[in-house]
Amino acid sequence: MYKPIIGISMGDPASIGPEIIVKTLNDTEIYQKCRPLVCGDAFCLQAAIDVLNSPLKINRVTEPDQAEFSHGIIDVFDLENVNQEYLQMGRVSAMAGNASFEYVAKVIELALARKIDATVTAPINKESINLAGHHYAGHTEIYADLTQTKRYAMLLVEKNLRVIHATTHVSLRQACDLIKKERVLEVIQLLNEACIGFGIENPRIGVAGLNPHAGDGGLFGDEDELEIKPAIQMAVEQGILAEGPVPPDTLFAKAVQEYYDGCVAMYHDQGHIPFKMIGFKWNNETKTMDSVKGVNITLGLPIIRVSVDHGTAFEIAGKGVASEDAMSLAIDYATKMAQNRIRK
Amino acid sequence: MYKPIIGISMGDPASIGPEIIVKTLNDTEIYQKCRPLVCGDAFCLQAAIDVLNSPLKINRVTEPDQAEFSHGIIDVFDLENVNQEYLQMGRVSAMAGNASFEYVAKVIELALARKIDATVTAPINKESINLAGHHYAGHTEIYADLTQTKRYAMLLVEKNLRVIHATTHVSLRQACDLIKKERVLEVIQLLNEACIGFGIENPRIGVAGLNPHAGDGGLFGDEDELEIKPAIQMAVEQGILAEGPVPPDTLFAKAVQEYYDGCVAMYHDQGHIPFKMIGFKWNNETKTMDSVKGVNITLGLPIIRVSVDHGTAFEIAGKGVASEDAMSLAIDYATKMAQNRIRK
Repeated sequence: MYKPIIGISMGDPASIGPEIIVKTLNDTEIYQKCRPLVCGDAFCLQAAIDVLNSPLKINRVTEPDQAEFSHGIIDVFDLENVNQEYLQMGRVSAMAGNASFEYVAKVIELALARKIDATVTAPINKESINLAGHHYAGHTEIYADLTQTKRYAMLLVEKNLRVIHATTHVSLRQACDLIKKERVLEVIQLLNEACIGFGIENPRIGVAGLNPHAGDGGLFGDEDELEIKPAIQMAVEQGILAEGPVPPDTLFAKAVQEYYDGCVAMYHDQGHIPFKMIGFKWNNETKTMDSVKGVNITLGLPIIRVSVDHGTAFEIAGKGVASEDAMSLAIDYATKMAQNRIRK
Repeated sequence: MYKPIIGISMGDPASIGPEIIVKTLNDTEIYQKCRPLVCGDAFCLQAAIDVLNSPLKINRVTEPDQAEFSHGIIDVFDLENVNQEYLQMGRVSAMAGNASFEYVAKVIELALARKIDATVTAPINKESINLAGHHYAGHTEIYADLTQTKRYAMLLVEKNLRVIHATTHVSLRQACDLIKKERVLEVIQLLNEACIGFGIENPRIGVAGLNPHAGDGGLFGDEDELEIKPAIQMAVEQGILAEGPVPPDTLFAKAVQEYYDGCVAMYHDQGHIPFKMIGFKWNNETKTMDSVKGVNITLGLPIIRVSVDHGTAFEIAGKGVASEDAMSLAIDYATKMAQNRIRK
């Protein structure tokens, strides 16, 4: 089996990014399936190694072919863009924001140049990147912009729940406007291809309605009948096992019982609410969301992008206590997707 | 402690309604806390007793004061509106639809006349009641109409999740239009009062935003800032522990960990998706939703109304296998609410 090169962007230097990468790369199994290369700052990774008291060593590279890809050594494409003197863990800053943007831009550049096979991203802070003058809502928008992609979609994966979104970071009113058959068909196709890429044959796709009870025969809005149903019919004609529009309040309860291999959500919270119900656990004491382990995949890009589904977790950054589970799963998904693309 | 009289409407005669009522009233504990009176059809209840091989007897009454309210006897306000010759279990029909409407109308009439203290409803079938010429979306709309109530709200209760809805059976677009500060304040107040009625002192109320990330500071829609936030401020000024607007995808994950005593959802699926994620279990074999046990309470009415949260379950009706858990919990809630109203 081909071992793809996975470019990992380090995320915000003030975040848990460096430490979860070090923890993940301490696992020998990772090196049996892929070749990880971190785009980040060597000093930050060394600091994480020190905090974790890890035996790992750093190998600084300026080109992927200088990497050793061997367990015990973290190959780092070192952008040297963090001034340790000014870095404050867990704090918003333009310096950290700019640095995190540059790591992302670098993995994208390497992937577009086919020097790496897939990209995995550690979390960035929206406030910090915006302070640094990079005006994006998040990773997805950076990827879309830098790869000049107009048609893409966010897929959330957690346990047996795989949810793609027809719309995401827009108001609920605008989401209603954007539900058109072309877009719905597109995300059904993207999800179907993605599921096949994960190794699921003939995936069963449940497509949510937009309105309560999927419109109840036109009683509550007409988008379900006029836009979603025709898109499902077109998908079925193409041989996709798509079903729906399914009443939104039953779709996800069915999917967690593995009735569907993948779900199509019409808007951000329709998909995010059930996802966080199963994937996140609110901690009343620390008042933080503890992510179990989920990943976020941007589909439709010319390159592979998988992300952890959690944030920068500034409140625990630099303490060495963050879980690497999501990062490990993200590398796993990126590896599978890269192997599948190469096979095709 | 006062034992309130709870009027139970039998629901659709072709549904699991009669059998879950018989199963529930077989429990001696019910009679220790309240006085149940069924509004239904004595023949249908007898048929359920026969299927269940239950030792219960029926006492037909024409006025509540003829009831015995004693375990072993089901007191039935018999509307004699089902022709057994034509009744087919599990089938939609105008006869069953008309009968189920009449049971509901009767419990409402008795409650308005203060002859009973609260009402509990077994499920009805929308198609059947509409076939019979009763053009309502469901129980809630019947109650609103027959009690001439304009301002009401649906509260879902399951385990530690209590969710009230600012809007319900309208399109998603219309829900956006209906999110106004007056309405949001109203449902916060209704939820706060309801929680106090359930015995929770100083309930903590989490109010969802409408848009993704609760609008993200106006980036995705302005309703969160212009309508929801001012309503929360007004509630806080009235001494209610209301918080928000909380990003919709984190609110419910926090509430299931008991961080909030009650949640305000802005639209149907925002509240129903998390509710069904925790309260329902999809059965891949029977292809049905098995409800754990949840209830649905209509707030804002001049009378108390609690319902089971499941449907007519036509596919298993008449077989004696339906679970009475939700009906039992509904009677429990109705009893608590009635006792609380009487105390006031």
